[in-house]
Amino acid sequence: MQKIRAICSERQVPKDEWLFRRDQPAEHLYLVQEGAVELLMEVNGTIDIPITLIRPGDGCAGIGALIEPYTYSLSARCAQDSVLLAIRRTDILELIERDAGLGRIIMTNLARKLSERLVETRQEVKLHFMNLVKMATV
Amino acid sequence: MQKIRAICSERQVPKDEWLFRRDQPAEHLYLVQEGAVELLMEVNGTIDIPITLIRPGDGCAGIGALIEPYTYSLSARCAQDSVLLAIRRTDILELIERDAGLGRIIMTNLARKLSERLVETRQEVKLHFMNLVKMATV
Repeated sequence: MQKIRAICSERQVPKDEWLFRRDQPAEHLYLVQEGAVELLMEVNGTIDIPITLIRPGDGCAGIGALIEPYTYSLSARCAQDSVLLAIRRTDILELIERDAGLGRIIMTNLARKLSERLVETRQEVKLHFMNLVKMATV
Repeated sequence: MQKIRAICSERQVPKDEWLFRRDQPAEHLYLVQEGAVELLMEVNGTIDIPITLIRPGDGCAGIGALIEPYTYSLSARCAQDSVLLAIRRTDILELIERDAGLGRIIMTNLARKLSERLVETRQEVKLHFMNLVKMATV
């Protein structure tokens, strides 16, 4: 944590400000210290569906900064006035490269987080599917 | 790859045989050498929706063996007569623990794979959502 702290910079971001948009190069990873960041999925280029809310202790926004091809797969907006710790992609990747033990820990946590999000998202597909079955049998 | 090979055991599995079911303890990770393994999501305890097909070179089935709480989140069945390399969870976790550099590589690949599956699954949620919007406006 101390090694990661050393490459963080604090940012105060007001409510409703966008941190990043889907498909942009993932230049930063964000830890939420205070407030909340909403991740959203763009549909049809016009509607943004809220996917999840990240509060202090919930993990990171912008994990595309840790995974090739290093682009954001969702958009992110501050849901409240927030205090964030921003980490540059190049800095965190260099740290992971230099310190294999720390790299393993970061990547293990990341995989666990992605796995949780995947289970939640599949749950949603399942609900949609069950609704379709229900509609088809009414 | 050599280090991983050393802890693999080869299994010939006939078409239609189940490798594991969702929520079971994830005791093994499987690499597909020949044939294909289908991952399925159980809906309502009766229907199994196919989620993805894993062919040689496509990655692993049973990645729950690498992530806490070490349970399978999908079910898996051989879609063809297959040759699989099975790795025991305890063996691969011990290898990751002993060799931080290799652990970092395995976890990075796992995170990339999970990220790809997450993007695909969200794409499906988006399609369902667009269908609902279409139905609501007809």
